Amino acid sequence: MRAAVYYGPNKVEIADVPEPSPGHGQVKVAVGFNGICGTDLHEYYAGPIFIPTEPHPLTGQQLPIVLGHEFSGTVAEVGTGVTGVAVGDRVAIEPLYRCGHCGPCRAGNYNICAQIGFHGLMSDGGMAEFTVVPRNMIHHLPDNVSLELGALVEPMSVAYHAATLGEPKSDDTAMVFGAGPIGIGLWFALRGKGLENVYVVEPSTTRRKSIEALGARTLDPTALDVPAYVADLTDGRGADAVYDAAGVQASVETALGCVGARKPMVSVAIYEKPLSTPLIDLVMNESRIQGSLCYTSADYDAVIALMAEGKYDTTGWVDKISLDGVIDDGFEALHAGTKMKVLVDPSVGGSGER
Amino acid sequence: MRAAVYYGPNKVEIADVPEPSPGHGQVKVAVGFNGICGTDLHEYYAGPIFIPTEPHPLTGQQLPIVLGHEFSGTVAEVGTGVTGVAVGDRVAIEPLYRCGHCGPCRAGNYNICAQIGFHGLMSDGGMAEFTVVPRNMIHHLPDNVSLELGALVEPMSVAYHAATLGEPKSDDTAMVFGAGPIGIGLWFALRGKGLENVYVVEPSTTRRKSIEALGARTLDPTALDVPAYVADLTDGRGADAVYDAAGVQASVETALGCVGARKPMVSVAIYEKPLSTPLIDLVMNESRIQGSLCYTSADYDAVIALMAEGKYDTTGWVDKISLDGVIDDGFEALHAGTKMKVLVDPSVGGSGER
Ligand SMILES: [Zn+2]
Ligand SMILES: [Zn+2]
Ligand SMILES: [Zn+2]
Ligand SMILES: [Zn+2]
Repeated sequence: MRAAVYYGPNKVEIADVPEPSPGHGQVKVAVGFNGICGTDLHEYYAGPIFIPTEPHPLTGQQLPIVLGHEFSGTVAEVGTGVTGVAVGDRVAIEPLYRCGHCGPCRAGNYNICAQIGFHGLMSDGGMAEFTVVPRNMIHHLPDNVSLELGALVEPMSVAYHAATLGEPKSDDTAMVFGAGPIGIGLWFALRGKGLENVYVVEPSTTRRKSIEALGARTLDPTALDVPAYVADLTDGRGADAVYDAAGVQASVETALGCVGARKPMVSVAIYEKPLSTPLIDLVMNESRIQGSLCYTSADYDAVIALMAEGKYDTTGWVDKISLDGVIDDGFEALHAGTKMKVLVDPSVGGSGER
Repeated sequence: MRAAVYYGPNKVEIADVPEPSPGHGQVKVAVGFNGICGTDLHEYYAGPIFIPTEPHPLTGQQLPIVLGHEFSGTVAEVGTGVTGVAVGDRVAIEPLYRCGHCGPCRAGNYNICAQIGFHGLMSDGGMAEFTVVPRNMIHHLPDNVSLELGALVEPMSVAYHAATLGEPKSDDTAMVFGAGPIGIGLWFALRGKGLENVYVVEPSTTRRKSIEALGARTLDPTALDVPAYVADLTDGRGADAVYDAAGVQASVETALGCVGARKPMVSVAIYEKPLSTPLIDLVMNESRIQGSLCYTSADYDAVIALMAEGKYDTTGWVDKISLDGVIDDGFEALHAGTKMKVLVDPSVGGSGER
C-alpha cells in the first residue's frame, strides 16, 4: 500500500509499504482522511522531535515511520479479542498511547501521561491507505458526521479540552487569541457549550475573514486596544475565560490584560521559547494561567456529539489533497500560510489538489 | 504625638503631628508595634507609588501621610456607633479599604477590589503613637498572642492567603521559593495546615540558616538541581503545591520545573518586571500559575488562631526598633539586607535600637 513515510528532517516520501494486519485486540482501518498539523510540520522541518530514533517503550517502533495522527476511516478488519467494532464501521481515532499506571493515568488524565505517545509519531499512522490501531483508540462516528469531520475530531478535541479547562458558563464573555485551527476549534467548542459572547482576536486579515465567515465576532489587535475594549464591554470586570491559541509574546501580553479577577487564561499553544510574561497581572487580580494538553476520550465524545448536532463547519478553512500532494500541497502550503488546515485522502492517487 | 511622616521619595521624617480622635464608627488605637515592609521601602526609595498625591477616593487623604500598615495595639478610645470593641482591648489591624460594590467585593474577594486602599498608605497609619481606624479593621488578639506577633498578622496573612490558594492537603509535598518574611510566613502557614513535607528553596546562606533555626528543611538552588531533587523525592510526580515568594527569574523558572501535573505554582511576589517564563512547562503537565494578593478577614482569623496555638515564632528574623530609628535601623537596614523584618515601637523615644 502507499504511505507518507518519515525518514528524517526534510525527508518524507510516498512509498510502497507492506499493508499491516491487525493483531490481538487491534483494528485495521481504511483511512478516510488524515489531517496535517503543526506537529507534523515540526517533524518535517526540524525533526525528529517526537518521532523516536530508537525503539519507543510503548510501541517498539522507531523511524522510518508512517506519519498521520489526525484521522478517520472505515474498519477494514478486526483482530481477535476485539468487541464492539465491526467491518464497515465509520470511526475517528483517538491516537494516544499511555502507560496506564503513572499518577496522571491513574487519575484519568492520561493526556498528560509521563510516557505519552501518538499513533502516527511513535507508530505507523494515518497517512496511508490502511493503519492498525489498538481497540481503545476507536470512536464510532454517527451516520450524519462525515469522514472529513471525523478527521477533525482530534484537533477539535484539543480545543474542546482547553475550552473546558477555562470553566466557562454560558453567559460568560470569552476571548480566543489566534484564529488558526485550534482557535477555530475553541470558537466551535465555546459556542457548543452555549456561549454567545465569544471574541476572537487575530491580527491576520485573512484569518479574521475566515472565522468571521463561520459566524465569529473578531477583534484586530493591531487596530484596537483590546484590553480597554474588553474592560468597556464588561463594565470593568474583564473576560471570564481567555484562551491563548497563538503562543506568541503579543498574544500572551494582551490576553493577560483581558482576564478578569479570579479567572483563567488557558494556554493551549506550543510555546517554542519562554516568553516575557507580566506575572504581576496575575497577582493583582488573582487570575491564573492554566496549561492544556491534548484531550481524553470524554473530549472526543463531546466533540462527536456536537458534530452530530451540526455545530462544526469546514467551510473556508479546510482543504483536501491527495497522498502525492503531501509535500507540495500539504507541508509547503501550510508552512507558507496559504492554507490553514489540510486533509489528506490516501485513497486518491495521482498528484496535486483534489 | 510623634509619627513617621512620608512627604515624598527619600523624605520620611519623625514629626510632631496632632493626635487623631475617633469619629463615628471609628476606633483609636495606641500602636504597640508596626512592621516595615517592602511596600514601605518602595515608597521611600522610589515612591510615591501607592501613596496618593491627590485626595484618595475612599479616604480623602493625600501625602504627607503617616506610614505604617502592619500593626497591633491597644484600644485607646472608641467612637460613637462602635460595638464589640472596648478601651484596653488588644488588637491587630486588617488595613484594607475597599469599595464594597465592585465584582470582587460582592464575591467576598475584597482583597482584589478595583479600588483597594491601605490604612498607612492611603490614610495616616501605624508608625505613630496613635492611629484611628474604621471598626471593621479591628481583629481581637487572644491573651496569649503578643503585640509583637499581632504586628505580624498582616504579612503572615498575606502568606496564609497564598498558602490556601495552592489547595494543599496535609500529606502533600510543598515547596516555598524565597525565605524572606513571606516565605517564612508560607512555611508557618503550611505547617499550620498540617503539612510535614515542606521544602524552602533559598540561595542566601543567612536566610537558609534563619529559617532552618525555625525548623524548616531547606534546599540551596546554587548547589542542587532542585527540580531533579523533587522529582526523585516524589517518584516523578513533582510537588503538589509550589509557592514563589522570591519573584525573580531564577525562582520562577526553577519553581515551574518542580510543579506536578494539574498542580499550581502560586505567585505571591511583586514582580517588578515581566519575567521570561517557560509557559510550555504549564502546557505539558496542565499545571498552572495562580496569583495571590493580600488577604481577607478569614486569613486574619486563621493566622491569629494558629498564633494562639503557638505555631508562630519570631526568633531570629524579627528586630525591634524605636520610632527614631525608622530610617537608619529600619529602611536602610532592610534595604541593605542586614535585617529581615523590623517592628517599630512608637511608644519608645530616643534613637537607635532597643
Ligand atoms: Zn496534531
Ligand atoms: Zn501514564
Ligand atoms: Zn506590607
Ligand atoms: Zn470593590
